[in-house]
Amino acid sequence: MAKLSGKALVAQGGGPTAVINQSLVGVVLEARKFPEITKVYGARHGVRGILNEDFIDLTQATTHNLEEVACTPASALGSTRDKPDEEYCRKMFKIMLAHEIRYFFYIGGNDSSDTCRIVNEQAKAANYELRTIHVPKTIDNDLVGTDHCPGFGSAGKFVAQAFAGANQDNRALPGVYIAVVMGRHAGFLTAASVFARKYPADGPHLIYLPERAFNPERFIHDVQTVYDKHGRCIIAVSEGISGPDGQPVMTTLKPSAEKDAHGNVQLSGTGALGDLLADLIKAKTKIKRVRADTLGYLQRSFLGCVSATDASEAREVGEKAVQYAAWHNVDGSVAIRRVGDYAVEYDLLKLTDVAAKTKHMADEYINPAGNDVTEAFKNYARPLVGELPDIGRIAAPAVHKIKGE
Amino acid sequence: MAKLSGKALVAQGGGPTAVINQSLVGVVLEARKFPEITKVYGARHGVRGILNEDFIDLTQATTHNLEEVACTPASALGSTRDKPDEEYCRKMFKIMLAHEIRYFFYIGGNDSSDTCRIVNEQAKAANYELRTIHVPKTIDNDLVGTDHCPGFGSAGKFVAQAFAGANQDNRALPGVYIAVVMGRHAGFLTAASVFARKYPADGPHLIYLPERAFNPERFIHDVQTVYDKHGRCIIAVSEGISGPDGQPVMTTLKPSAEKDAHGNVQLSGTGALGDLLADLIKAKTKIKRVRADTLGYLQRSFLGCVSATDASEAREVGEKAVQYAAWHNVDGSVAIRRVGDYAVEYDLLKLTDVAAKTKHMADEYINPAGNDVTEAFKNYARPLVGELPDIGRIAAPAVHKIKGE
Repeated sequence: MAKLSGKALVAQGGGPTAVINQSLVGVVLEARKFPEITKVYGARHGVRGILNEDFIDLTQATTHNLEEVACTPASALGSTRDKPDEEYCRKMFKIMLAHEIRYFFYIGGNDSSDTCRIVNEQAKAANYELRTIHVPKTIDNDLVGTDHCPGFGSAGKFVAQAFAGANQDNRALPGVYIAVVMGRHAGFLTAASVFARKYPADGPHLIYLPERAFNPERFIHDVQTVYDKHGRCIIAVSEGISGPDGQPVMTTLKPSAEKDAHGNVQLSGTGALGDLLADLIKAKTKIKRVRADTLGYLQRSFLGCVSATDASEAREVGEKAVQYAAWHNVDGSVAIRRVGDYAVEYDLLKLTDVAAKTKHMADEYINPAGNDVTEAFKNYARPLVGELPDIGRIAAPAVHKIKGE
Repeated sequence: MAKLSGKALVAQGGGPTAVINQSLVGVVLEARKFPEITKVYGARHGVRGILNEDFIDLTQATTHNLEEVACTPASALGSTRDKPDEEYCRKMFKIMLAHEIRYFFYIGGNDSSDTCRIVNEQAKAANYELRTIHVPKTIDNDLVGTDHCPGFGSAGKFVAQAFAGANQDNRALPGVYIAVVMGRHAGFLTAASVFARKYPADGPHLIYLPERAFNPERFIHDVQTVYDKHGRCIIAVSEGISGPDGQPVMTTLKPSAEKDAHGNVQLSGTGALGDLLADLIKAKTKIKRVRADTLGYLQRSFLGCVSATDASEAREVGEKAVQYAAWHNVDGSVAIRRVGDYAVEYDLLKLTDVAAKTKHMADEYINPAGNDVTEAFKNYARPLVGELPDIGRIAAPAVHKIKGE
């Protein structure tokens, strides 16, 4: 089989992660090893950068610079929420043809994998030989076919460290503490809050996921029960929690909510859901101290919170993408397969098997009451999130009371 | 001078910090060295624990356990918002007398230093010999007399790392990003966001502090100017920003806001201020993508974000507190004096010089327009916040356009 000679183009789409630049650098450094890949271009701001012919020549970036970028959170090439249709893709091809681009690597999540599928179909229809490889990333961990997604582990580590600290804070000044976690349709990231628990009675005491219909009455009952037992209650809530009708609690709250090009309602970048739930607890219980945080963009971009496993795998999916394209002359989506405890291998899936599909948490990961996760989930996610900084609790005996009791 | 023989009692008050347990452990380990200090008790949940005779015997905690606790965020003994009056203090003395407590160390901020002052005055009035030492902590950095406060550096590091990541995120997906930072009366913590800037045009582009009256029209003008220049805008806003009348913007928004025993309005634990400002920008400009985060409790309790300098100094103020009490037979508030670039020594201030007073940012730390900080502030705060993880930006040339212009 003749080697396909031409330039490689890499781009990043969708929401950034803490390790998405590891994948970028994996693609660039690996692609620079292949003689048939004449140059490595980066498109600025995803597919929009292709449409605008807005390229930079990554062949000329130093390895030192790239390694520095690899450790930097959020898409270094810039991102986009654009979702190309046929017309959009036709224009992209003209640009790609003009630049002799023969390898296209798109790093992104569900929406970006769908973009890859459309681009790939358009390329075939236009009889243009183009390797299109989707490089997975998403903090939501909701791509099908792969064991997990690069980006999830680091975001999960951030969430776990946030709840571990909040748990200490809430022990010091007891009350109800709610933190809203990103995750539109899948609860993996919210579920990662479970790793904040070290000692018995540590929070989060309740975990609400988009996979289970949210019932306000049941919620209040849960909170009261925990509060009565522990004198405090920490709650992890996914931003995507929905009622029995499938409508996000956020939408029922704010019917005029903003939508993006993919028709997604804006769930992040507002504290509204947390405040709504806090107000609900204040209205329906006698608990006085109720606080709500929304972890917000820090979950995907906070500087200095990376899972080592996540960083390595993010790098490797980038490298593997190039190897598949150059050696195997195929298109597809790179996937991670768990082969041990803990070890992985990489696969290439068909784009049509991944594009625009959403993986949800398995039933075995959620407790029957729908307000917590199981040991099975912890076994699944622990190697991805990795080790947290250790914490300690004072171990000292109570002093006998002399005056009162 | 005869050595005062009896037990030591340590407690923690007010909002937790990431290093408040360093001070606790500093007190405990140092106090255990003095033979005249017969036991070291910890009161659970601050002065309330004294009132309730709720003590644990820290003499029996292992050094290993204490060192583990030192690295754990948030008050390990528990905290309180109680503000003792004379009656409250009278009851506390009865308990202290019964337990032969002669050394009282209270780790806290403005309100806690005032508690120390009252306790000390009550002790004198009751002719009860008691060493009362206030050990400073506050993420707000607003205690008078001291160069800075333990807790601030680590919270500042968290804020800087949050903005450094948010800046990358916002470069990838441009728009307006607001993050609300803790700080009721003093803007130091919000100002620490400045350390997120590495490259020219990095955010935060605008910094609003409680020290300057907030003007919505001026705010909108600032945001529009930055957005026109950079195509994006990152804004750091203190939760305590107030109008020309001195009323917090939060209060005008939510007149029914909750108050604590000190009469402080609840500013944290809600996303309301961020959402208000985002809505204001959406209403008054044509900018479409506007997002607001509220950094919330993570600023003071996130696990795994500590300034090394801050941790060392927090430990030392605890140790010094015991030394002052045992060797110098005095009462007061431990202060940090900057004696070099960067080096510190410790002082003991009179309780009455510190209690319930608030330090604001010096005029020289704020730019004339009141929407940014100065080099003088950076020189002041940089050694406290310490080094951030490094980030990199791709250095590669643009590719010449073939198709377009």
